[in-house]
Amino acid sequence: MSATPNPTAAMLVIGDEILSGRTRDANMHFLAGELTKHGIDLKEVRVVSDDEPAIIAAVRALSGGFDHVFTSGGIGPTHDDITADCIAKAFGARLDVRNDARAILQAHYDTQGLEMNEARLRMARIPDGAALIDNPVSAAPGFTIGNVHVMAGVPMIFQAMVASVMPTLTGGRPMLSQTLRVLRGEGEIAAPLRTLAEAYEDLSVGCYPFQKDGAFGANIVIRGTDGARIDAAMTKLAKELEL
Amino acid sequence: MSATPNPTAAMLVIGDEILSGRTRDANMHFLAGELTKHGIDLKEVRVVSDDEPAIIAAVRALSGGFDHVFTSGGIGPTHDDITADCIAKAFGARLDVRNDARAILQAHYDTQGLEMNEARLRMARIPDGAALIDNPVSAAPGFTIGNVHVMAGVPMIFQAMVASVMPTLTGGRPMLSQTLRVLRGEGEIAAPLRTLAEAYEDLSVGCYPFQKDGAFGANIVIRGTDGARIDAAMTKLAKELEL
Repeated sequence: MSATPNPTAAMLVIGDEILSGRTRDANMHFLAGELTKHGIDLKEVRVVSDDEPAIIAAVRALSGGFDHVFTSGGIGPTHDDITADCIAKAFGARLDVRNDARAILQAHYDTQGLEMNEARLRMARIPDGAALIDNPVSAAPGFTIGNVHVMAGVPMIFQAMVASVMPTLTGGRPMLSQTLRVLRGEGEIAAPLRTLAEAYEDLSVGCYPFQKDGAFGANIVIRGTDGARIDAAMTKLAKELEL
Repeated sequence: MSATPNPTAAMLVIGDEILSGRTRDANMHFLAGELTKHGIDLKEVRVVSDDEPAIIAAVRALSGGFDHVFTSGGIGPTHDDITADCIAKAFGARLDVRNDARAILQAHYDTQGLEMNEARLRMARIPDGAALIDNPVSAAPGFTIGNVHVMAGVPMIFQAMVASVMPTLTGGRPMLSQTLRVLRGEGEIAAPLRTLAEAYEDLSVGCYPFQKDGAFGANIVIRGTDGARIDAAMTKLAKELEL
């Protein structure tokens, strides 16, 4: 059906606070939804701690394996914000204060009546060759180097940066989906689902069980880029399940 | 301070529904908290789709890199539940219906007045040499093979299985933490934080910014296994920030 496959993406979440259970990550779910709307297939997410070798290894692996990589976290002014350093090392790029980033920060702090100190200046350190990502929330920019988009971890800022980056990317055909909720256990519907999945190999047929008030049910989700095919598969399924 | 480092762990979340943004993962945050309490350091999380090569590669990489691996998702009765197959392949183990698992399922379905069909029997397929993980919610067991603990994705069942596995693991010293919430931007507190982190190299000093009602603030978190050292560091920090 679809001649050109959609571009692929991976996400790298950086931060001890997620892995210790202190903070519940919110950026993965947000990015997943935005990419799906844009026709870019999110294939893998990794979460690593604030550890230089771990970050560099993950950036290299994901950058080599997917069309786009989105990172979240570790680009603030404090000593534990080491993402820019790691990304620069992963690409063998020089990292220093860049005039364009410094000017953006200076204008922001002037407006706010804050002084530019050494810590804040850290956020103007951008790898050579990187393009800045606009941060309308708190000014300090993210950046894109190669196929890696480096963004802040604070959800409001992350979301604003994703909105800045997304229009610059070539998307594919948006992934469409329909969901059928059935109040039967997975074990009862598994056979017709398998038959359906085999008959519609161009679609993805997923089954996601749930429990509610002690009863078992499942959401059956059919995904694909061709709405008419999804309609046809869903109609066939409803008939086979005698709904 | 601490002579023996804590055991390390990684998590592998398996499921298209997380990567498409349809479902928000809840298991990572739960497991992170449980491991921290138990003195096991969660170092990395990966999320991959229902794709055999991706699952096998991730299991091998994580199993080789960490003391424990916990997987979530893909062990139900439907065609898209391929986790057991992939884990068996990753370990080169035979996978077939095992009598111990079948007996557990049969007893459960007998009680519920449900028939054992082909789909349900799939959940009794357990790799040779694996130990079963008790599932008090819906009977179908998880399993441990090598250093990999394979569990269900439905949060209520995942949590019950974690409770079954955790007492069988040797933990380390629980990670303790104290948090100081300050209503100042990170850029103002970065310098004293760096000095503190350098003076207390045995502790981890993290700074997690937030925005509330338009104002910037940060949670400063000091982590370690020695409560007295954390107390001392926190006292010094409060003094330096003139709180």
